[in-house]
Amino acid sequence: MAKIGVIGSGSWGIALAALLYNNGHEVTVWSALPEEISEMRSTHRHHTLPDLVLAGDMAFTEDLEEAMTGRDLLVTAVPSVYVRSTARKMNPFCRYGQVVVNVAKGIEEASLMTLSEILEEELPMADVAVLSGPSHAEEVSKNLPTTCVAGARTRKTAEFIQGIFMSEVFRVYTSPDILGIELGSSIKNVIALAAGIADGLGYGDNTKAALITRGIAEISRLGTEMGGKFQTFCGLSGIGDLIVTCASMHSRNRRAGILIGQGKTMDEATKEVKMVVEGIYSAKAALALSEKYGVSMPIVEQVNAVLFNNKPASEAVKDLMLRDKTIESSDLPWD
Amino acid sequence: MAKIGVIGSGSWGIALAALLYNNGHEVTVWSALPEEISEMRSTHRHHTLPDLVLAGDMAFTEDLEEAMTGRDLLVTAVPSVYVRSTARKMNPFCRYGQVVVNVAKGIEEASLMTLSEILEEELPMADVAVLSGPSHAEEVSKNLPTTCVAGARTRKTAEFIQGIFMSEVFRVYTSPDILGIELGSSIKNVIALAAGIADGLGYGDNTKAALITRGIAEISRLGTEMGGKFQTFCGLSGIGDLIVTCASMHSRNRRAGILIGQGKTMDEATKEVKMVVEGIYSAKAALALSEKYGVSMPIVEQVNAVLFNNKPASEAVKDLMLRDKTIESSDLPWD
Repeated sequence: MAKIGVIGSGSWGIALAALLYNNGHEVTVWSALPEEISEMRSTHRHHTLPDLVLAGDMAFTEDLEEAMTGRDLLVTAVPSVYVRSTARKMNPFCRYGQVVVNVAKGIEEASLMTLSEILEEELPMADVAVLSGPSHAEEVSKNLPTTCVAGARTRKTAEFIQGIFMSEVFRVYTSPDILGIELGSSIKNVIALAAGIADGLGYGDNTKAALITRGIAEISRLGTEMGGKFQTFCGLSGIGDLIVTCASMHSRNRRAGILIGQGKTMDEATKEVKMVVEGIYSAKAALALSEKYGVSMPIVEQVNAVLFNNKPASEAVKDLMLRDKTIESSDLPWD
Repeated sequence: MAKIGVIGSGSWGIALAALLYNNGHEVTVWSALPEEISEMRSTHRHHTLPDLVLAGDMAFTEDLEEAMTGRDLLVTAVPSVYVRSTARKMNPFCRYGQVVVNVAKGIEEASLMTLSEILEEELPMADVAVLSGPSHAEEVSKNLPTTCVAGARTRKTAEFIQGIFMSEVFRVYTSPDILGIELGSSIKNVIALAAGIADGLGYGDNTKAALITRGIAEISRLGTEMGGKFQTFCGLSGIGDLIVTCASMHSRNRRAGILIGQGKTMDEATKEVKMVVEGIYSAKAALALSEKYGVSMPIVEQVNAVLFNNKPASEAVKDLMLRDKTIESSDLPWD
């Protein structure tokens, strides 16, 4: 049994808190929002996961020091835009060697840093790791079989995290490639937008599978140039997470894409979806990274043209289909 | 404009014949079944593709010599079990250097040979290539955007094929990795069965994405051991084709899997699906290959246990979830 603090009480944080509790650990959940804490304390429910009943002895607090003190493991599950500010608030209470597993996804727009890079900058005393994979919170909260990958600087930390999260409904693999895990799971939202656009245009499963496969090809071209490993982009945090996002109507990115494919503008689509469409920010970040590292990312380019330059979506698809004829893997030529 | 013979008149052969015709080529379709030929000749329709009208000057013949003589390209599109016998009949009419693109998928059960290996054995004078990717025939026949990869022994042949098939709705990439393309597209049906079983058990998108991702991981473990390239399994003919198969109710493999997941036996499921369930044969072949090459394939093993040893599907999933804790990519360890 481990003592675990979950920092952030969105649906993913809460689904993981319940999983960890069911695995026999002592779990304390922190939120910046006092009303969320008092609601969970009194109802043992979370508004985004209606079927889940939280155990009576799961602890809830708005006191960061309380959530962090004496924990074997901290799970950071705050939205990507709040990661830096939350880490700054965590800094005074963070002991040397504290394992911090980040489960949020995103790239900081101004710095183009990944979330674990931000955490390492703001919490230099921590041992920062990540957990990612095809994992809708709602399905995890219903105990449907799910797999993830835990990335850490050392095998020992990765296996520590694996041991804490793993159960008969939640299988965890280990990986040394933190950067690859984070890049895949952040940029995938741009491809999910593209897949949604194709759905909105009335295209079929062939088109969507093409966008997913060629999408991961361009993500791995960028990611390997930045230092991530090709295998990671073909794994659970890369193609796996992309598949689940493109298959699901839970995904805001896909839903916004469908509306754009049907002819709505980006502003109209985001208004209708009513929530943050992460892929729109990631589209800009991915384009900036592709330019910084000199990597061709045709799908990312077309998504940016549709989102920000009013390019008709059908024209973007046509341009993708008729690009220069090319080899599937440029690192796999004939002898 | 090229002169093309399409050998086989199933839905995929006909969808490609129509695509090639629309690209401006002269197309002759051969079938072993005289009634199919006379029906297409008189109605310009194919029973499996109700929306497609075949052009008036597309030629149909039951004479193999006529279909093969003077062709720049032959497309073989017969069911995998007929590839060897058809190739034997083709042998007398095959000129030296004839480009033959196989578009069927499968592994010969007795010899464990791929279809291009069979074609090369039976047509030693031919330049054998393959075309594969996420491509439901029905969607191709409706001109929905689709991508494939053309694998050939030389770049020249691959680019020749690419030039002939490519259009604004059909994008073709090239590859030197014929073996990798064929292994991925054959064994994927076993994983599609597993994904169907998970659907039948009532599991969610997380489980399916896990099976697809870990499925391609074990296919590429086997395939690279046999000489295929890792990149290919992460490409259109590998993960791309697997995604489209697992997403679609068109797939007999997936449909049979759903029935098995709901508690039917293999025999009951195949009777209900009423067609050849390729994945059942591929499951045996994949298991035989994994034993021959000494490669661990846990999903293939569990599918075989469910199909042939009456193992309850839910127990198979549990065994997969609780296997030994492991690293995601064994060739990607910590330093």
